[in-house]
Amino acid sequence: MMGDSALWLADRPLILASRSAIRRQMLEAAGLPVEVVTADVNERAVETAARAGGAQAPGVAVALAAEKALAVSRMHPARPVAGADQTLDLDGEALHKPADMAAARIQLRRLSGRQHTLHSAAAIVHDDAVVAQAVSTATLTMRPLSDDMIDRYCRAAGDAILGSVGAYQLEGPGIHLFESIEGDHFTILGLPLLVVLARLRDLGLVAR
Amino acid sequence: MMGDSALWLADRPLILASRSAIRRQMLEAAGLPVEVVTADVNERAVETAARAGGAQAPGVAVALAAEKALAVSRMHPARPVAGADQTLDLDGEALHKPADMAAARIQLRRLSGRQHTLHSAAAIVHDDAVVAQAVSTATLTMRPLSDDMIDRYCRAAGDAILGSVGAYQLEGPGIHLFESIEGDHFTILGLPLLVVLARLRDLGLVAR
Repeated sequence: MMGDSALWLADRPLILASRSAIRRQMLEAAGLPVEVVTADVNERAVETAARAGGAQAPGVAVALAAEKALAVSRMHPARPVAGADQTLDLDGEALHKPADMAAARIQLRRLSGRQHTLHSAAAIVHDDAVVAQAVSTATLTMRPLSDDMIDRYCRAAGDAILGSVGAYQLEGPGIHLFESIEGDHFTILGLPLLVVLARLRDLGLVAR
Repeated sequence: MMGDSALWLADRPLILASRSAIRRQMLEAAGLPVEVVTADVNERAVETAARAGGAQAPGVAVALAAEKALAVSRMHPARPVAGADQTLDLDGEALHKPADMAAARIQLRRLSGRQHTLHSAAAIVHDDAVVAQAVSTATLTMRPLSDDMIDRYCRAAGDAILGSVGAYQLEGPGIHLFESIEGDHFTILGLPLLVVLARLRDLGLVAR
């Protein structure tokens, strides 16, 4: 892979504790060698516990990112593991990935004409301890959408939108749904890459 | 192409008056059918004339986008043509694409530790008239970079960076150079897609 020796300083690849293809692509595009290892985490249980502890949407994302990384770190204690998560907050309520296209339509109708926030979190775990955490936020305003527009959008986007907490993909036809976007693209795609790279530099894993 | 009939309402594709592969990809990812037709425009002459008329960096980008679209529109008067341009402003000075890797290194040393702005403009031309214009701005802050970091970055990124006004590609290893980014990704990549889509909706070319 081009670039790994120039910017990534460790001998072995970064372990990414996420099934998300786009997160892997983001890290690889940034020139970091990545190995995906995932473990099963009961995400709704982690979320419930975090909320019971007083966490809001950004804190829930950080807790989920940390739990995913910790679960994988137990299998590879000597290596740095990155976990990640993204939560969507609509006026205090969390939205999750829609189960099917009918649920996606309902989600889009709820987001239509309103502002929501995306919180993308990452945690770096080493030797069974969280050594760095990062969270960044993007604020998105959706246009008021007619049912016809939602239909057209769903036809154009297909079931790829079921992989997103907001039932849209900004890197595809999802851009048609928005009036304004504040926040960096990496945050929107689900990884606070700017902050993750800063933490990896602090840890001596990435070139300064 | 998936999605064109659902979101693009005209019979024939949008003509894009730009050689930039990433601009074409952005429009196609948004589900718009695109046909690239370019014409030679003396960009430095347009820039000089715009500046003589009092234009600052955003106005120069709009003038260049309009001239490129007008030149192509003369060949296809009956069809909508989109032109685009991006300018980089570093404390009032315009930076251009570096000629070679040595020039890229000099450019990166100048940007190091400082904030700069990118202005991405588009113009839609129909029947030899500019029917819509759009410009959006992103503000980027580069980390202070050592010569060693610039070397590592240039090795990781290769001569792809010569295609960028800032000698970096945020969608690749360029992300390592930055401390913070304000502005949407489309603006950074060189096309104010959110505003372009809004104008295309106003013109009845894209579904509302």
